[in-house]
Amino acid sequence: MADQAIISLNKSAISARLDVAKLAPVIEQAYQAASSGAINLPPVGHIVLADHDGDCHIKYGHQLGDDVFVIKVATGFPHNDPALAPPNNGVSLVLSATTGQVVAVLHDEGLMTDVRTGLGGAIASRALARPDASRVLVVGTGVLAPHQINAHRALFDRPLDIAVWGRSEQRAQAVADANSGLRVESDLAKGCAEADIIVTITAAREPIVRDEWVSPGTHITAVGADAPGKHELDAALLDRADCLVADSASQCIDHGEFSALAHTSRIVELGAVLDGSAAGRTSDDQLSVADLTGIAAQDIAIAKAVLAS
Amino acid sequence: MADQAIISLNKSAISARLDVAKLAPVIEQAYQAASSGAINLPPVGHIVLADHDGDCHIKYGHQLGDDVFVIKVATGFPHNDPALAPPNNGVSLVLSATTGQVVAVLHDEGLMTDVRTGLGGAIASRALARPDASRVLVVGTGVLAPHQINAHRALFDRPLDIAVWGRSEQRAQAVADANSGLRVESDLAKGCAEADIIVTITAAREPIVRDEWVSPGTHITAVGADAPGKHELDAALLDRADCLVADSASQCIDHGEFSALAHTSRIVELGAVLDGSAAGRTSDDQLSVADLTGIAAQDIAIAKAVLAS
Repeated sequence: MADQAIISLNKSAISARLDVAKLAPVIEQAYQAASSGAINLPPVGHIVLADHDGDCHIKYGHQLGDDVFVIKVATGFPHNDPALAPPNNGVSLVLSATTGQVVAVLHDEGLMTDVRTGLGGAIASRALARPDASRVLVVGTGVLAPHQINAHRALFDRPLDIAVWGRSEQRAQAVADANSGLRVESDLAKGCAEADIIVTITAAREPIVRDEWVSPGTHITAVGADAPGKHELDAALLDRADCLVADSASQCIDHGEFSALAHTSRIVELGAVLDGSAAGRTSDDQLSVADLTGIAAQDIAIAKAVLAS
Repeated sequence: MADQAIISLNKSAISARLDVAKLAPVIEQAYQAASSGAINLPPVGHIVLADHDGDCHIKYGHQLGDDVFVIKVATGFPHNDPALAPPNNGVSLVLSATTGQVVAVLHDEGLMTDVRTGLGGAIASRALARPDASRVLVVGTGVLAPHQINAHRALFDRPLDIAVWGRSEQRAQAVADANSGLRVESDLAKGCAEADIIVTITAAREPIVRDEWVSPGTHITAVGADAPGKHELDAALLDRADCLVADSASQCIDHGEFSALAHTSRIVELGAVLDGSAAGRTSDDQLSVADLTGIAAQDIAIAKAVLAS
């Protein structure tokens, strides 16, 4: 019997293989494949570790025709002391779709999830914002902030004026200090009114971005709401939006920002917008909202890309 | 941030830590915990890799109070050339239930699944057979045969007279040659009639053990039916049984041998029989049937035991 030579990569080895600009078309293709049914994506697995208010998601699937499939494990323990253990962690398994053997264990500690989430946000913003959009407001200062900032800068073909707002201005300043050229926005209402693109990455359970603050022509990429009960946007803002785009319609309706919608028939999927089979923004004065809950197709694509690079 | 020192064990290191006799009480305790609700067991994940007629199950859960939880991945590719890749394979992840960090990757290639399945069979046979039962017929010659044989020998406090029957007498002879003291049974009807304990481990899709062959007082441990459409026992045999025991009532009704039952209210769980909260066999002339589909509680228990040993 042939020996199983299993690849094992740690976080720094994986980090060295993650080139955001090169990954963008890979993640775009993943959205398109998911929306067109070219990926077998079973229901997401989930377990709660109640004693420590933690949980674990298992996202897995197989792009039809691929010689591997991927199982992505992501844990979230928000009360971890960051000095001892990161609040988000994870590992991906890559297995042969022809023999069932384990091909690789990617100990990314959640990095691939953060990177593909940043890329998803920038891909949605680029696909849906006005062609001249350049002012970006990032709402939230958590671990996703630098990934959204990096990905937006890498994917747009023009300089972006990026500001960050946080409930804690100190944390917003820390994000700005760590990302050159970033402004701190202290007035959320003013920041929203002036932004062409608003990227929300908070864990808010009550809407934080108000309808009356947002100008016509704005695009919003909402990334924070990834579980039942989480909401970042006014329900009125969703009702008013001309264009509602989901990474996965079923996931977003179930536990994303769009779970607040009374009528979901207007939702189109990002993959369908990217491949031209559904319309995104059709005029400069429209309000567009993308709701991203994160899909296994992204996890499969980034794991494959790390292995191939 | 503390470095993650992740344990990684290969199949031979895991094999050296698997002591069947020591594991028996661990697996018995797992059945009891599962039946009493002391383990959080989400629905089993499943993906089909259709191009190669393979599939993958993801069984996972957390025994309440434990400081780890376990995700067990098992693949089945029955058409693999065994000279190149085993038809069954797998890996288990052990994660911290207090921080979400990966504690260990157990590259057992499916060995832990085979061992816990063998143990489950022997535990069920010991709990449900007549106190004087000694003649065992193993029906099937696949990879599970040696594990069932080893576990039955390890768990019973008396010598067992074990025979093996296979559709291919050549393969039955090969199993006998590899396990000292084993007889080959060429007549399945006679073998069933003479056995005190029948252990079925085939992948049959049509019943292979007929009602009229089986004597009163016999115990049957049915391990082979682990997916919809698989059946090893005559439906009449199940109807006639005095005692129907499942490792998991819901799994066995959904996709085990017991999916053929018209009435499922008689089913009791093995864990409840082991802890005395449900009756198993109550007289020597009863016919008892245990249906084992394999539960995540076993996988959690054996992974923890390997790590602790």
